[in-house]
Amino acid sequence: MMYMQMLANTSERHKALSLPEIHAITKIEGELLKGARRYFEGNGFWEVVVPHITRATGACENIATMFDVDFFGDRAFLVQTGQLYLESLIPFMERLYCVGSSFRSEPDVDERHLTEFTLVEMELPCDLDGLIGHIENIICSMIKPVTDNRMAELKTLNVPKDHINMLRKLRPPFNRITYMEAVNLLKNQGVKWGDDLKSRHEKRLMESLGNKPLFITHFPKAIKFFNMRENTGNPSIVNSTDCILPYSGEAVGAAEREHEHDKLYKRLSESAMLRQLEQRGGSIADFGWYLDTLKDGRMIPHAGCGIGLNRVTQFAIASGDIRMSTTFPQNRESLM
Amino acid sequence: MMYMQMLANTSERHKALSLPEIHAITKIEGELLKGARRYFEGNGFWEVVVPHITRATGACENIATMFDVDFFGDRAFLVQTGQLYLESLIPFMERLYCVGSSFRSEPDVDERHLTEFTLVEMELPCDLDGLIGHIENIICSMIKPVTDNRMAELKTLNVPKDHINMLRKLRPPFNRITYMEAVNLLKNQGVKWGDDLKSRHEKRLMESLGNKPLFITHFPKAIKFFNMRENTGNPSIVNSTDCILPYSGEAVGAAEREHEHDKLYKRLSESAMLRQLEQRGGSIADFGWYLDTLKDGRMIPHAGCGIGLNRVTQFAIASGDIRMSTTFPQNRESLM
Repeated sequence: MMYMQMLANTSERHKALSLPEIHAITKIEGELLKGARRYFEGNGFWEVVVPHITRATGACENIATMFDVDFFGDRAFLVQTGQLYLESLIPFMERLYCVGSSFRSEPDVDERHLTEFTLVEMELPCDLDGLIGHIENIICSMIKPVTDNRMAELKTLNVPKDHINMLRKLRPPFNRITYMEAVNLLKNQGVKWGDDLKSRHEKRLMESLGNKPLFITHFPKAIKFFNMRENTGNPSIVNSTDCILPYSGEAVGAAEREHEHDKLYKRLSESAMLRQLEQRGGSIADFGWYLDTLKDGRMIPHAGCGIGLNRVTQFAIASGDIRMSTTFPQNRESLM
Repeated sequence: MMYMQMLANTSERHKALSLPEIHAITKIEGELLKGARRYFEGNGFWEVVVPHITRATGACENIATMFDVDFFGDRAFLVQTGQLYLESLIPFMERLYCVGSSFRSEPDVDERHLTEFTLVEMELPCDLDGLIGHIENIICSMIKPVTDNRMAELKTLNVPKDHINMLRKLRPPFNRITYMEAVNLLKNQGVKWGDDLKSRHEKRLMESLGNKPLFITHFPKAIKFFNMRENTGNPSIVNSTDCILPYSGEAVGAAEREHEHDKLYKRLSESAMLRQLEQRGGSIADFGWYLDTLKDGRMIPHAGCGIGLNRVTQFAIASGDIRMSTTFPQNRESLM
């Protein structure tokens, strides 16, 4: 289809802005945001405006993919996650959220990568099970105004009827397996314990379980963000989950957070992320303010997640191409 | 007051995060955002996610205050306004808005400057009078949930009772004078036609008119953004307005936009902004995509504005210090 090619072409986006498909995507994205905010407002979450020019505390696992900013002669980064900023308010305000841009210096121009996308993040005092409940509910809350109000737009985008029916019937609980179970299911794909799951693996797992949203829980500690909380029974895994959605793959990363200062300091010291930061001229001092907020038992147990808005849009419109999921998709060739 | 000093100190913000005053500010800011979105949703505006790494088309008058980003070897900037991106959708979607970060490379650490703040922007087909009506209504819509739901927080921040009464009674129309009238009123301050108004001038004007929100309209073309539309009767002025609020000063910049390609091309070619851009190695080609959207009479008459959220917060909490207006105020010394 002609319009599919135009939507996938990001190098001259302004030429596609007259397409009804773009307007449909914009309106659907707006409904998803509305649904997310409705959930937060209805459940006692406070909105916080977080910084977007940050130290390494704005990093999301991989320092190598951070954009540099010359900040009056200091080196700063463009934020990837507001998580640590939200966390710093947890002891005082409890349920918190932010919605904003997340930046990745990824040169790939393809159906999976964007240099900038919208991240919906929440942090709150709860455990992994509680958090999974919130994620299920917020995704349903995001999808509902789309099927309630945007049928014409779903039609414009040729979204199959059976997919729309699936969206309409979407209810908690979603499917759920552990990383260990996932590895067993993927044994014949050459996957072994300790490997990160690739998107083709996630897709296969989801399909083998009815092609519906799927939580994979309890990943190995070694491959995850330094502040994901160790499992009490098994310190080689963390109380984390990724939520995989049809068409887009991993749409949510979530975990309980380590709230004890000394444990966290040790984890950070030993992390691959800190090695990367040191290679870019940084040090553990960049995390000083954040570590401070945990001192003297000040932090309380909590958990949180980041939901990639564009991945939810892909799920809503049944599209395997993230460039079709937003009005102005940003990648290396799209600068405007 | 002790907490006032802590709130004004931006160099170690995380140490102030336990202050009830910070939580009050966060909650009030959230209500203002909620009120703005409620207005947009109730009046047929579509939310758009705009790019935050841009060409010069993300500039707001002054190229010199843009942060540089190394974008895979290309020079890019951090966005200051989403205006031109919203405008490009006007012929197809009509009423549009965006809410997000706006960046200024301003080294000043004081009560008036932030390097990052939240801008609430709208564009729609209407004239200056129509736009002023929307601005009055949206500011009232932002303030209302604060006085409805955040009385305890206003008390925490020691907001004077008569100020809260003024907020409660806030209704359109706001006061309104032309730039010409403003210059006459400020004659004894040494202000003459063609000068930009300084914040002390704006303050004096507002106070002399009852210390209430004030629109100043029809500025000289030479001192304003290149796409503000010329007045038909007097081509030396543009159909623009600034809205001045008590405590914060200029909180909204607004104007009809030039929608005729050839006129706009000429205005841009002759603009001081283009000279600045050329000094930084750019050219009019950076505006190529935007000029394209106006070709062949494709653009329709429209107008729009940017509302500085933090300036509205200052007005809501009766604070002359913008560092008190948000949870994580960003300036040269605040990097975290």
